[in-house]
Amino acid sequence: MPIRMFKYWDQQTGHKRVLIRHYLDWAATAIEEESSEIPIQGNPSSLHMEGKVARSALEAARADCASVLGVEAENLYFTSGGTESNTILLHSFLFQALSLKNSKAKILYSDIEHPSIRENCLLFNKLSIPTTTIGIEKNGRISTELFSRALAKNEDCRFAAIMGVNNETGAIMDLKELVSIAREQEKKTGLSIHIHADLVQALGKIPLDIKGWDLDSASFSSHKLGGPKGIGLLFMKKKREPLSRGGSQENSFRPGTENISGAIAMAKIMKKRTAAFEAAFEKACRLNNYLIENLNKIKTSYLIPENRKAEDDFYSPWILQAGFRGVPGAVLVRALDKEGIAISTGSACSSSSAQRPVLSAMGLDKSKQLEGIRISQGWTTEKEDLDALFNALNKVLSYL
Amino acid sequence: MPIRMFKYWDQQTGHKRVLIRHYLDWAATAIEEESSEIPIQGNPSSLHMEGKVARSALEAARADCASVLGVEAENLYFTSGGTESNTILLHSFLFQALSLKNSKAKILYSDIEHPSIRENCLLFNKLSIPTTTIGIEKNGRISTELFSRALAKNEDCRFAAIMGVNNETGAIMDLKELVSIAREQEKKTGLSIHIHADLVQALGKIPLDIKGWDLDSASFSSHKLGGPKGIGLLFMKKKREPLSRGGSQENSFRPGTENISGAIAMAKIMKKRTAAFEAAFEKACRLNNYLIENLNKIKTSYLIPENRKAEDDFYSPWILQAGFRGVPGAVLVRALDKEGIAISTGSACSSSSAQRPVLSAMGLDKSKQLEGIRISQGWTTEKEDLDALFNALNKVLSYL
Repeated sequence: MPIRMFKYWDQQTGHKRVLIRHYLDWAATAIEEESSEIPIQGNPSSLHMEGKVARSALEAARADCASVLGVEAENLYFTSGGTESNTILLHSFLFQALSLKNSKAKILYSDIEHPSIRENCLLFNKLSIPTTTIGIEKNGRISTELFSRALAKNEDCRFAAIMGVNNETGAIMDLKELVSIAREQEKKTGLSIHIHADLVQALGKIPLDIKGWDLDSASFSSHKLGGPKGIGLLFMKKKREPLSRGGSQENSFRPGTENISGAIAMAKIMKKRTAAFEAAFEKACRLNNYLIENLNKIKTSYLIPENRKAEDDFYSPWILQAGFRGVPGAVLVRALDKEGIAISTGSACSSSSAQRPVLSAMGLDKSKQLEGIRISQGWTTEKEDLDALFNALNKVLSYL
Repeated sequence: MPIRMFKYWDQQTGHKRVLIRHYLDWAATAIEEESSEIPIQGNPSSLHMEGKVARSALEAARADCASVLGVEAENLYFTSGGTESNTILLHSFLFQALSLKNSKAKILYSDIEHPSIRENCLLFNKLSIPTTTIGIEKNGRISTELFSRALAKNEDCRFAAIMGVNNETGAIMDLKELVSIAREQEKKTGLSIHIHADLVQALGKIPLDIKGWDLDSASFSSHKLGGPKGIGLLFMKKKREPLSRGGSQENSFRPGTENISGAIAMAKIMKKRTAAFEAAFEKACRLNNYLIENLNKIKTSYLIPENRKAEDDFYSPWILQAGFRGVPGAVLVRALDKEGIAISTGSACSSSSAQRPVLSAMGLDKSKQLEGIRISQGWTTEKEDLDALFNALNKVLSYL
């Protein structure tokens, strides 16, 4: 059994420390493996050699990312992360709504979106820009029926945000089918519908087909793959007018000196994850089955949604949401943490909130919402990590 | 004479290369020296130990930055860079204007602002949010007279952006004096005026006194100091309502998983620059005098502004704008680049534009605007670099 060494600086003593840990919160952030080894000097906007070398490195990174995603490099924009990718895309619609006064174009978003979509849309409402939700099935997925109904009810819809893989339940949306429904409506009304997919939890973890799915835009993050924090990507098929102005970087859509070493590290980790995708996915499925099988042995446990099965194609094997009757998720997270196990309740981005909007939209009652915990695995997760989780669960559930 | 080795990956051959270069474009970006050596695992929003270690590292970095800036840590917000710091602060006023309809509060900005201020303000005008410029003296500075007049003419002004050190001419604003004028007007009208200073080219390069100057907000960037790209800071005395929503990171003002290794590296380089400030500043002054003295020996040369003197307290010794009669700046940049000298015309953020709004506002005619070049030094610049520049200038000016 390999020893899981977690190295960090102890802020109080100033010393480097090493602890044995089992990290099972990969959906919050992956264990960082890659960062740029050679610092790229120069500003890619500069006209001299240092600038050109920097530009060349940046564009090579973009080309690598494009090749992994199966899209054109010119349609990729580096950002500071998934949240910014979602936000600047939404802001381009905010800009459009503000410029075209009296526009009634509606923004649709699903009930399972990341806070960077949901909370921005809630804000848009306050600014008199109409937004409405698509609805969600009890299984945590957006069915074609729900989406068809939402589009039919909102013929003025020009934008819909649909998360590719939900970050709390692992539910996978059938993006190909959902986009085709929007394209059908476009043919009927003659008005275009921009479909945006948050693919932060999808990249490197499930098979992607951005072109085949016919998406208009999509968001990606590096740190979820084990690359550095502070770098992400926005795919955008047709360049829109941004809200933020400033420098001409990133085709004038995302101003500010580019984070080149971040971009290089992101390209590197994307290539690495893609090269080893099949084996990693298969292993994740195997471990997820083992996880479900053993959780089911615990009397008080239940999966969220309850009818989630092992080897279900509509859930990401990397993420599992579950609950233990009578045990608040936050209490369990703390107890397991003391046993060396790192899991979470839901999204790290809303860890400070007691709200569980995704579980609530799935129809779970308040007590089950609070019981929900998320177990998410990553590339170096092994059976031993899960065994350690089961041992710890048996121990802490006996006294909680 | 030390050899200046510039190492990079040649994208075409895939090999590491080393060239002798003299880098004199530090205002575009500094030569990177520091980056975080130990990757910080975990998401600082997570509740487990990995998350707490990450949180602790992030807050320690924030405290270090606060100590360098002489402000409270709770008033510092990490961003992806100077451009984002300027933009999200402006966006908080955009949000205010959009929420309070019929608000006539005016935004003032100077004619020498970075594109991330100027171009966003120009956009605000298009969205029916009134903005207007403060004006500028021929010497590239905002005089107290100009600012007083602008405020008197715009009693509905609630926000003014004043750059601390201009990125093209090195002009230093007397922020203490300028802020006090606004505070006087506040007393008269009873209405507050938010003063924002872009201090990207000031931090580490001239003495700062953010509290003493009584600024309401200020922007900073890491990569201008030799820290990594993709990380910056916004100081904000009183928290405002942001336009972007999402996660609760950075006191809910700047959503998105924090770039911790960037924050650590930024804190580290800020401490390093501050610890060695006196010596570095003195050396920059000495080299700047040497630079001016030798440029003045070249017949066709002139400084911008023309009356800039060596040892002038109102110009940063790190940045010098100059011109050579009859030689377009862009041509000179290319010719010097071939001789191993890296300089620029003006801001890297607007290198793709032939416009020189700052020089234009200073009253320079079109031909002089196009002749302007910027020589900016940094922490490892030595006399030999300047000598190499003079040799190269003599050579290329003989045939240009």
